[in-house]
Amino acid sequence: METRKVAVVAAGTSQKWGIFPGTYRDLVAEAGKAVFDSCPALSGGDIEGFIASSVMPERNVFQSHVAPLAAETLGVRPTKLFQRVENMCGSGTVAIRNAYTAIACGLADVIMVVGAEKMHTPEWGETVLNMLVGVDREWEGAVGVTAPVQFALTAQMHMRRFGTTVEQLAAVSAKNHRHALGNPYAQFPKACTIDEVRASKPVAAPFTIFDCSSITDGAAAVVLVCEERAREFTDQPIYLLGTGQAASGFNYANVHADWSEWPTLRTAVGSAYRMAGVGPGDIDVAEVHDCFSISEVIVTEEMGWAEKGGGGAFAAEGRSTYGGDVVVNPRGGLLGCGHPLGATGVAQATEVFRQLRGEAGPRQVDGAAIGLTHNLSGVAEHHVVIYGREEAL
Amino acid sequence: METRKVAVVAAGTSQKWGIFPGTYRDLVAEAGKAVFDSCPALSGGDIEGFIASSVMPERNVFQSHVAPLAAETLGVRPTKLFQRVENMCGSGTVAIRNAYTAIACGLADVIMVVGAEKMHTPEWGETVLNMLVGVDREWEGAVGVTAPVQFALTAQMHMRRFGTTVEQLAAVSAKNHRHALGNPYAQFPKACTIDEVRASKPVAAPFTIFDCSSITDGAAAVVLVCEERAREFTDQPIYLLGTGQAASGFNYANVHADWSEWPTLRTAVGSAYRMAGVGPGDIDVAEVHDCFSISEVIVTEEMGWAEKGGGGAFAAEGRSTYGGDVVVNPRGGLLGCGHPLGATGVAQATEVFRQLRGEAGPRQVDGAAIGLTHNLSGVAEHHVVIYGREEAL
Repeated sequence: METRKVAVVAAGTSQKWGIFPGTYRDLVAEAGKAVFDSCPALSGGDIEGFIASSVMPERNVFQSHVAPLAAETLGVRPTKLFQRVENMCGSGTVAIRNAYTAIACGLADVIMVVGAEKMHTPEWGETVLNMLVGVDREWEGAVGVTAPVQFALTAQMHMRRFGTTVEQLAAVSAKNHRHALGNPYAQFPKACTIDEVRASKPVAAPFTIFDCSSITDGAAAVVLVCEERAREFTDQPIYLLGTGQAASGFNYANVHADWSEWPTLRTAVGSAYRMAGVGPGDIDVAEVHDCFSISEVIVTEEMGWAEKGGGGAFAAEGRSTYGGDVVVNPRGGLLGCGHPLGATGVAQATEVFRQLRGEAGPRQVDGAAIGLTHNLSGVAEHHVVIYGREEAL
Repeated sequence: METRKVAVVAAGTSQKWGIFPGTYRDLVAEAGKAVFDSCPALSGGDIEGFIASSVMPERNVFQSHVAPLAAETLGVRPTKLFQRVENMCGSGTVAIRNAYTAIACGLADVIMVVGAEKMHTPEWGETVLNMLVGVDREWEGAVGVTAPVQFALTAQMHMRRFGTTVEQLAAVSAKNHRHALGNPYAQFPKACTIDEVRASKPVAAPFTIFDCSSITDGAAAVVLVCEERAREFTDQPIYLLGTGQAASGFNYANVHADWSEWPTLRTAVGSAYRMAGVGPGDIDVAEVHDCFSISEVIVTEEMGWAEKGGGGAFAAEGRSTYGGDVVVNPRGGLLGCGHPLGATGVAQATEVFRQLRGEAGPRQVDGAAIGLTHNLSGVAEHHVVIYGREEAL
């Protein structure tokens, strides 16, 4: 079996993330303008496939069928493939994987992926309530076992088992808020100290509000094409080298024997490394899913960058920032940028695209040639993509 | 480029469609049991990928993240691919296409697709209101331009342009309700006359309630595998021979210059015919999206079975039933079975699978070797898959 290589040729995000004053359509339009602006050779008529990623527009904007809405907004009439995907916080990466498989097997040559989420509703209470649809509402959400609680329990297990400290968790938060200073669109650029992180409002022990990503409106878009056509659109295509995904259950009580281990992430990234023909030491830059500070700690371990149990020290010692082993979350991560659910995975790809092209401005990672995105949907569902410059093929 | 062939090896649906008394989980479990029962060689551990198709569980069951919920319910822990797709009424076929592309390009060998929709809520008014999220809520739904209105306007245009009569529309409804008599799980098996269809409650002119598919709870599941592994699971794999999709806009006012023509369906089925290497005359059995009676009329034209404008006569003359040119909707279609949005496309595939294997019992189409499914999501978004027995490869 010989499948086609697939490259990203265009990428962009909506502007300042946070509370977006316009409609869902307006938000899509902003990301759409950015993606077209990034690639002058691309026009709406080139797009054969269109994939929308959005988690709960049914609740937050009373609109489910957002794929044709977004395509119409951007002047795209897909003749070969279209759809919306929802996979909670990891939807954006699922959408990119679907674009990849469709192009790789020949169903379409040029596919646009748009991730958009407008989370703020006129009533804050409604927005918070709506988040319950993303966890096991019947058995967990209804009794308060929401995402902050699940990740807090995960952090407590990690602290007990490996001696991880709250200061190490805070080091992740401080780093990503600092990284966000280089990103004009980030929701929370802050030069905060570890003490300031600890002194912020408590959420679910051991987390303070700075350990938690936020409710955010935002959108991002990328365009993927088959290798044969990549040069029609850009001199610097960025190739998808490998991808993996794995999941284990839904109910937090069932998913793992030990919450401080994420075996499904090992499976997912193992698939991606094998397919890409690279290993942990080859990754120059990574966008990983730091929905809570503990998440980045465990991710850096399961990726093979830190030893198991050493993810806290890895961050505290500066090994995941500029000058370290691998630059993790240069755009500021979910902690610094905010987390507009269905947009996050697409925005991660946008950042890696820019980094590998040397277009990341003040946050550029010198000489970045291979990058990775990691998205999760709850502690047990992981989605990984590895990208590289053309010479890495 | 040489991609792998993909086969369906197992298929099943939940039992009696209509108002389901249990939870969403229970509904998924019922379809899951049916799909495993259909293929004794298959177990949960074989499933590497899992795709859920569901349109508005966020609203009707207050649960968005249904892919892991459904997988957990069925004892599946996917190690290679998982996701939920939403594409309004065509979601099920989108999900099957995603399973196809992932297997064809080698990302996974064995993928289960589960479509499930629980539409009835305790308050009927809420169920009806929720349907507004599927149309352009901001510009059309909010002023009453819902699906029945859009298809009624389509029917009026077709009647004016081609002289199609209400009796011809009623002939579609009478046929599909009659076909449903052979399907013990159909919501509305009825031996009704054309006069009885016309005498039923008016909905939106020219439709009576019998011209319209209904609010329904139901679920269906299929398992797709790569050609190399098909014989591990069954002696009678049914192959996916071709597929196509096309869309044009969202807002009903924008999509087509003339609502009585569906050019995007011609594009979609053209792709599917070319990929499969077959033509209109080769299709023995078809499951098409008769959400309203006019839909089947236009579909039979755009598929190339009836001449343009002749779809009404095609039904009235018996050319779309047993003994005619092509048996359309043998299980009873959406009119006879009900239309549980995200489940419908998967149920259509289940029916074609059974028909091509000669397992359709009282509704068997003699000698059916090539079958087609057609799903739509609004008048301008069409999804087509063509299936065949092994000898058709």
